[in-house]
Amino acid sequence: MSTAISPLAPKKYPKMPAIEGVRIATAEAGIKYKGRTDLLAMVFDAGTAVAGVFTRSKCPSAPVDFCRDNLAGGKARILVVNSGNANAFTGKKGRESTTLTGKAAATAAGCTPGEVFQASTGVIGEPLDSGRFSHLLAGLVKDGKPDLWTEAAKAIMTTDTYPKVATATVKLGDTDVTINGIAKGAGMIAPDMATMLSFVATDAPIAAPVLQALLSKGVAPTFNAVTVDSDTSTSDTLLLFATGAAAKRGAPAITDIRDARLGQFKRALNKILKNLALQVVRDGEGARKQVEVTVTGAKSARSAKRIALSIANSPLVKTAVAGEDANWGRVVMAVGKAGEPADRDLLSIWFGDNRLAHNGERDPDYSEEATSAYMKRDEVRIRADIGIGRGKATVWTCDLTKEYVAINGDYRS
Amino acid sequence: MSTAISPLAPKKYPKMPAIEGVRIATAEAGIKYKGRTDLLAMVFDAGTAVAGVFTRSKCPSAPVDFCRDNLAGGKARILVVNSGNANAFTGKKGRESTTLTGKAAATAAGCTPGEVFQASTGVIGEPLDSGRFSHLLAGLVKDGKPDLWTEAAKAIMTTDTYPKVATATVKLGDTDVTINGIAKGAGMIAPDMATMLSFVATDAPIAAPVLQALLSKGVAPTFNAVTVDSDTSTSDTLLLFATGAAAKRGAPAITDIRDARLGQFKRALNKILKNLALQVVRDGEGARKQVEVTVTGAKSARSAKRIALSIANSPLVKTAVAGEDANWGRVVMAVGKAGEPADRDLLSIWFGDNRLAHNGERDPDYSEEATSAYMKRDEVRIRADIGIGRGKATVWTCDLTKEYVAINGDYRS
Repeated sequence: MSTAISPLAPKKYPKMPAIEGVRIATAEAGIKYKGRTDLLAMVFDAGTAVAGVFTRSKCPSAPVDFCRDNLAGGKARILVVNSGNANAFTGKKGRESTTLTGKAAATAAGCTPGEVFQASTGVIGEPLDSGRFSHLLAGLVKDGKPDLWTEAAKAIMTTDTYPKVATATVKLGDTDVTINGIAKGAGMIAPDMATMLSFVATDAPIAAPVLQALLSKGVAPTFNAVTVDSDTSTSDTLLLFATGAAAKRGAPAITDIRDARLGQFKRALNKILKNLALQVVRDGEGARKQVEVTVTGAKSARSAKRIALSIANSPLVKTAVAGEDANWGRVVMAVGKAGEPADRDLLSIWFGDNRLAHNGERDPDYSEEATSAYMKRDEVRIRADIGIGRGKATVWTCDLTKEYVAINGDYRS
Repeated sequence: MSTAISPLAPKKYPKMPAIEGVRIATAEAGIKYKGRTDLLAMVFDAGTAVAGVFTRSKCPSAPVDFCRDNLAGGKARILVVNSGNANAFTGKKGRESTTLTGKAAATAAGCTPGEVFQASTGVIGEPLDSGRFSHLLAGLVKDGKPDLWTEAAKAIMTTDTYPKVATATVKLGDTDVTINGIAKGAGMIAPDMATMLSFVATDAPIAAPVLQALLSKGVAPTFNAVTVDSDTSTSDTLLLFATGAAAKRGAPAITDIRDARLGQFKRALNKILKNLALQVVRDGEGARKQVEVTVTGAKSARSAKRIALSIANSPLVKTAVAGEDANWGRVVMAVGKAGEPADRDLLSIWFGDNRLAHNGERDPDYSEEATSAYMKRDEVRIRADIGIGRGKATVWTCDLTKEYVAINGDYRS
């Protein structure tokens, strides 16, 4: 398996500020990995609101079930995340493990188990022994520090080749509030399944129902618009925490999603979600190129997204991009197989600004030379105009390389 | 691109008998390939009935449109197939080309253009100049011979590594009737899209509506149950011709799908369709292993098939098979992402006869050693029992290897 850092990794990482009301600690619990951190505790001050979205898998992991149950309460005091074992498809033992972790974390943080959130990523089908790390939680709560966001991002990595962090500071009313986020992505755990985890926190005083509405809306054009290989994890988890600590500095309490003062915050949050989602794509297994697929002129936005995902998930399109081949015929194929309304003879296709096909046939004016040069870039944009409506959507993926097959075809160790 | 014959190719090929009422000729038209045949004409005696099924792509090729139009007539006198150019996404020029080919073939065969069928496979988006081969059709009709079925299978190959043929002789009433079939599969045309073409003919006297009913039913568990990479071609075409010549030898004319005398014929036809479909899978790009995926205990047969295709199309499952890794966690993932009714805690998974997971967790009795040995076979069976109903389905695919990426990621020449 490759351990080289993705060529699409950020050129520089932001310095992550503290979020008032959040303390972070990590540890080497030795769950599977040696010589690196694999346990994260994020401790929140009393009054922290929480929102979450999860995998749509019909076979979710035990921690996903645990978080879904607790989300109704809307309150969080501690988040516990381990890497190395996903606690997925572990039956009753899985539930026992999340129950034990929940109790240990509640004791450590001085809260109820209903205010605990947890996530696990790594090998699936192996029972996760909570006893391997639950005794460490009290120490982590005691040692937590506000400025360890990058360390947090490192502790939750599996085969990610770089830690994923993003931050923004914006006005809420007249007061500065900060949003920090971390993510782990489509790396495989030697070589079990990819899992997307992301945790975002802010000091803004935003009520849980508003937070949930922001997150549910924000996830559609960001985390739900990226795909590495069309395979949905059992464990995908995105949680958003709001400590409300900025209220002391004068930030207004937001209790209504229609509150006009939310504008800047909402845009910044969506930007962070998109930033993290794209970092996940750019660290996709074996990825050498980022691919942006935009579909315009579809019957509806929903139809556009389906067609865009059909293009982005097509192995033939993805291998063509890997081969730097502007193979628009495969884009036609992927539009055709999406099953959405389309008229072959109205279809146009671009790679970057190069229109290769128009009105259902090859564009007579297209330059093979310019297009070939374009395909050598490490960010490739594909656009398909369906020509029958106003529906529009953009999704992101990466190319499909031999390295992907190597990473995922190795024997499980 | 690899030119080695697939390791899953048949150990021996059947000798293909003649079908009374069918004459075959091939030619080197030089449409794209050099030094090989790329044009096939199959000429049928008057009175030949025809049935067909086609790609579900919303962007079908011009020949698919042409065949669909003619199918309503139910009569066929000539089939013309070229390889090297798919005449797909060629706009008006595509229709002009099929019209010209239709006229030339009708003149050559002494029939109406409505009795002509045609198919094209190869590069897409390039106009197909009918003039490159239409002048050859009269000669092909004149030179046609009954015993050139294997030559026919060779002429329609693109990057297939072996010709695909199958034959059976069965009783219709008290008379022997023969069914011959050829197919070309999921090879890429250097490196444009894969296309599945198959042509089956019989001397049995079966009326077109009965033929269509047999074919539409037969295709579901055969050609519509195989997948190489989830990418649907613009050009998939399966045609079934019945010359009726066996009537002279006493075979009964069949005009009703419920005719009890059809039993043997129906079984033989379905077997040929399955045989050809599996040959396509076994010649899938880069394929090293055939994978049979069976889902049992689903809510319905339809639901079972969706789950089975979710497993068979999962890049993570397919790379695991390539790596000879019995990674049942990825099967759980693929069941979960199918979006069909499933209960994680009732799920069981087998590789061959090795049960790896049961009641939602790892089977404590499973033997790593026996399973590892099993995964080294070149035919691997995966079974998932969903545990909630009686729905059942089987589909076939191949593994996903680095060779697939190499074949499809090379520059288009």
